[in-house]
Amino acid sequence: MTVNWPSQDDLLKWLKSDLNNWGRWGKDDQKGTLNHLSSEKTLQALSLVEEGVTVSCARPIEFAASVDVPKPPQHFMVTAGDRYRKGEGVDRQVAMDYFGLIFHGHTVTHIDSLAHFFWDGETYNGRSSSVVSVQDGATEFDVMAATGGIVTKGVLVDAPLLRGVDYIERGDGVGRADIEAAEREHGVKVEQGDVLLLRTGQLGRREVTGPVDVNVDGSSGPSPDILPLLHERGVAVMGSDTGNDVGPNPYERFSNPVHQVGIVGLGLWILDNAWLDDLAEACKQRGKWEFMISILPLKMPTVTGSPVNPMVIF
Amino acid sequence: MTVNWPSQDDLLKWLKSDLNNWGRWGKDDQKGTLNHLSSEKTLQALSLVEEGVTVSCARPIEFAASVDVPKPPQHFMVTAGDRYRKGEGVDRQVAMDYFGLIFHGHTVTHIDSLAHFFWDGETYNGRSSSVVSVQDGATEFDVMAATGGIVTKGVLVDAPLLRGVDYIERGDGVGRADIEAAEREHGVKVEQGDVLLLRTGQLGRREVTGPVDVNVDGSSGPSPDILPLLHERGVAVMGSDTGNDVGPNPYERFSNPVHQVGIVGLGLWILDNAWLDDLAEACKQRGKWEFMISILPLKMPTVTGSPVNPMVIF
Amino acid sequence: MTVNWPSQDDLLKWLKSDLNNWGRWGKDDQKGTLNHLSSEKTLQALSLVEEGVTVSCARPIEFAASVDVPKPPQHFMVTAGDRYRKGEGVDRQVAMDYFGLIFHGHTVTHIDSLAHFFWDGETYNGRSSSVVSVQDGATEFDVMAATGGIVTKGVLVDAPLLRGVDYIERGDGVGRADIEAAEREHGVKVEQGDVLLLRTGQLGRREVTGPVDVNVDGSSGPSPDILPLLHERGVAVMGSDTGNDVGPNPYERFSNPVHQVGIVGLGLWILDNAWLDDLAEACKQRGKWEFMISILPLKMPTVTGSPVNPMVIF
Amino acid sequence: MTVNWPSQDDLLKWLKSDLNNWGRWGKDDQKGTLNHLSSEKTLQALSLVEEGVTVSCARPIEFAASVDVPKPPQHFMVTAGDRYRKGEGVDRQVAMDYFGLIFHGHTVTHIDSLAHFFWDGETYNGRSSSVVSVQDGATEFDVMAATGGIVTKGVLVDAPLLRGVDYIERGDGVGRADIEAAEREHGVKVEQGDVLLLRTGQLGRREVTGPVDVNVDGSSGPSPDILPLLHERGVAVMGSDTGNDVGPNPYERFSNPVHQVGIVGLGLWILDNAWLDDLAEACKQRGKWEFMISILPLKMPTVTGSPVNPMVIF
Repeated sequence: MTVNWPSQDDLLKWLKSDLNNWGRWGKDDQKGTLNHLSSEKTLQALSLVEEGVTVSCARPIEFAASVDVPKPPQHFMVTAGDRYRKGEGVDRQVAMDYFGLIFHGHTVTHIDSLAHFFWDGETYNGRSSSVVSVQDGATEFDVMAATGGIVTKGVLVDAPLLRGVDYIERGDGVGRADIEAAEREHGVKVEQGDVLLLRTGQLGRREVTGPVDVNVDGSSGPSPDILPLLHERGVAVMGSDTGNDVGPNPYERFSNPVHQVGIVGLGLWILDNAWLDDLAEACKQRGKWEFMISILPLKMPTVTGSPVNPMVIF
Repeated sequence: MTVNWPSQDDLLKWLKSDLNNWGRWGKDDQKGTLNHLSSEKTLQALSLVEEGVTVSCARPIEFAASVDVPKPPQHFMVTAGDRYRKGEGVDRQVAMDYFGLIFHGHTVTHIDSLAHFFWDGETYNGRSSSVVSVQDGATEFDVMAATGGIVTKGVLVDAPLLRGVDYIERGDGVGRADIEAAEREHGVKVEQGDVLLLRTGQLGRREVTGPVDVNVDGSSGPSPDILPLLHERGVAVMGSDTGNDVGPNPYERFSNPVHQVGIVGLGLWILDNAWLDDLAEACKQRGKWEFMISILPLKMPTVTGSPVNPMVIF
Repeated sequence: MTVNWPSQDDLLKWLKSDLNNWGRWGKDDQKGTLNHLSSEKTLQALSLVEEGVTVSCARPIEFAASVDVPKPPQHFMVTAGDRYRKGEGVDRQVAMDYFGLIFHGHTVTHIDSLAHFFWDGETYNGRSSSVVSVQDGATEFDVMAATGGIVTKGVLVDAPLLRGVDYIERGDGVGRADIEAAEREHGVKVEQGDVLLLRTGQLGRREVTGPVDVNVDGSSGPSPDILPLLHERGVAVMGSDTGNDVGPNPYERFSNPVHQVGIVGLGLWILDNAWLDDLAEACKQRGKWEFMISILPLKMPTVTGSPVNPMVIF
Repeated sequence: MTVNWPSQDDLLKWLKSDLNNWGRWGKDDQKGTLNHLSSEKTLQALSLVEEGVTVSCARPIEFAASVDVPKPPQHFMVTAGDRYRKGEGVDRQVAMDYFGLIFHGHTVTHIDSLAHFFWDGETYNGRSSSVVSVQDGATEFDVMAATGGIVTKGVLVDAPLLRGVDYIERGDGVGRADIEAAEREHGVKVEQGDVLLLRTGQLGRREVTGPVDVNVDGSSGPSPDILPLLHERGVAVMGSDTGNDVGPNPYERFSNPVHQVGIVGLGLWILDNAWLDDLAEACKQRGKWEFMISILPLKMPTVTGSPVNPMVIF
């Protein structure tokens, strides 16, 4: 399968009119597609739980640099345990640490807030991009809008399983056809307020074959042809086991069409680098690709997203 | 009420024998009291949900220094939106940031892993404290043991409400008597696998009256006399809206008895600086102090805990 | 003495024409007033040395937060010595650390590069201020232009000594009259290529009376009326024991006139928060206020200055 | 030439007795070989200056990760210039940044303080290594002891030039024979209080052939057979364009013999990763391998060294 690229003009039209949600939830809205969440939706998600079994969709954070982690996370001990010895009798024995990271990129499981991308100097809902400033960070559209919790129904589209391959190649994408195949073959339905997870197998494969430079070797990810479906159905969060844009792409103006149309136009919350291999296995075992999922971003005012540990409950 | 301080000898006996869980779950156990969690427990928690309403128990992370935040969190933009202008036509417009923090302390909502405290050169389960080293971090007992997700029943003991006061004073603690009063008066039951939340009102009061130096002005928190109850009942996680030790305390050898006996002896997972005022209000409105709660620590190997956004669902 | 404030129109005229050095040393010049340095000047400075005695003009970097250090420097050990014991026989025993800091501000002795201030979207020499970007740092006018070394003659104007006071009050400045008094009374001469040091006593006083919020309590510093003298004489570097602008000031448009006219207009290199009390004592003892001085910024491409340890040799 | 490795027993004897300076300058001494500095020495150095020409011996700090920089320096803008446009009229236009780094390693030009290495739980001068703690840093033997300034005579031993090769191979070292050859052929004399610089050409070659993993590919550096000469002559600082230990080495107990005997036994100050190619060229042009040199470490209490920009003046 090759990506079914929409034309650049289509993308521009989607961004500016067809899929554009500016003003839909008020001129001061900060939540975008999280407005599709609801208590009813949360209750629906809970009703899917049968076993009480949890499956994490986060990849462990690595503190080492690599070709796709040029600025690695930091971890420093502020105090540690190897300074103590039994019998030496210092009573207050404690360990503390500092960690820090740039979570955006291609390896850390994280959610993007609506402050992550702009188009022509504007954010989602038509504010000036200057509301996200070098000095003060995201004075609007920070991750706080999601920190009331995303607890809803999740749907996994396991594209390699549906296509009968081991993984989706870099340069190929998971498109509308894959989602519709999942609906047809796995009996799921992408609905308003859902977290839609698209599996390519790419992140799992990275563990095996090693990191690559995405700018050189490209990436799998969601095809931009899914954007209208996301809008029609009212998807709350779209995620995958990639950085969520297929590379390279044919556009002159769009570097990251899913992020650019999705975040700026739809106000779409995107989950990058989710770890979906364990979830895929759990779904396959059960023959069940719908579930309750919780995504609980850290409460960080002015930050453009958050590392998360999305948790599915079967 | 004044704290009912156990004797130092009692604490030592609890730590070393009476409440000691070393070996209980195998000599290589890393989970401690999270072994009390179970699928049945998760299902029990879900059965408490009626409305689909979420309440966050996290305090927003502040990036400013203050008297109780001497080493403040960091937030730097790697790229930002105030560099763009409408009509200038740079198409890839993106914001990214770095954040870093020492989450232990008295202001950030976080969970302690079992690597956070030692006693006489030993960790929980009797390993040398040197497994938590300055160079490699927590090579055992890191937060990874909790990253499968804590999704279970929670119980709130709203001590000020029960006592008819606005808040528990610094220097005073929430003790066994408060928990038993909650069970008696609010119809709750602290059971195996629960997250037990003790509210003092202290963190909310900090918002109003400002930060203080805990080493000078003391702190409210759980009284160490609750430790046997935690053990008897099989509490999975104990948390409060404090740093979780009353200060000052009368002991010569124990600086933080709840942490020292709890973490090292019981293998207790502790939730520090939870934001419980919104939850207390929600419980009071509903006359219901038991609920489903999810705590989803970040997947950070070698780190001694994680900032979290604990989420209650009614 | 009160500050002899030039009019805002004068400042604007100085910035844009009278004292403006744009193009003076070529359109690609990155060095500004460091062009006044020369080998002859270095030899002149050496000829002042009689004793071989060094005096440091740096204040120790503090890693603690305070009212004028809201974002404190960081220091983490990567490995340390308290993990070892005599007789335990681990042979590779080493300590390493990480330090990091925002050096600009009011406490760290540092030199500003010409990338530190802009005026109306332009840098020194008339480039767009966008050459200093959030993503890439100072792609021009970084501190590299000074890393060939500033080894030249220094002159100390000890304003409190000249005025017979203990220190210059916050809100008051060291002006042209003080410099001329020093020339008259101390037999010095401010010449081309000099490092001109203006002492107020403010930083030393901070050690005694504690930090203040400069935005509230104001600051001493060089009066902007010295700018023409700096230009006439060809001063290479101007420094003081302050953040180098008197606060508050009467201007509508200039927040930091010395920095704004100095850096942007003259291409002036400014040394902030120099520790001048030891030097003042050494000068007074010798009755000699001219000396050799070395300022050796770290070689940090894209950085807007550098912490330094300026060294005087008598 | 192959390295003339002393026996391990010799190294131990040197460390503990023959070259041991413990107590030589008092039991509280923090300066070690910097005690060899003197005003006379500084004056001698100045007398070598003829031209007033400076040559920097620092390599630019790189903020990118590479195989020998696994934990790269950090650089973040706190505010930047690309947010401004001419004519928009925001008057306070400023750029500020944060930088941070682990300077120890194989790429950053830095000086080691005496807190950098230990032997059998002890520091130079026989203190417990625990004076350098994970929590408080170097409470003794920090870099402060050098911040009065190192301004003295320098001698360059240009080993490739003396041997008629382009560079010294990894695994080979610069030894006593090279130093004696320099004295014989270049007319220099290594004397008390000198900064002795040994050039291998390795750092310059790294610019051309790229970084390598020193633990795999080894390193050139000073041979440990120079340690007695350093002691006899009273060298104040020894540096080279390497990490200053030849690798691999044949010892069971010594991982870094020059650092271990040098720092712990002699109290030797070591300059790592100096950039010596420009200096070598300047020396060759002049037929002069002795000069004045200034090394001015940052005033950082509790830090185990400092990045520096060593400056030679001809």
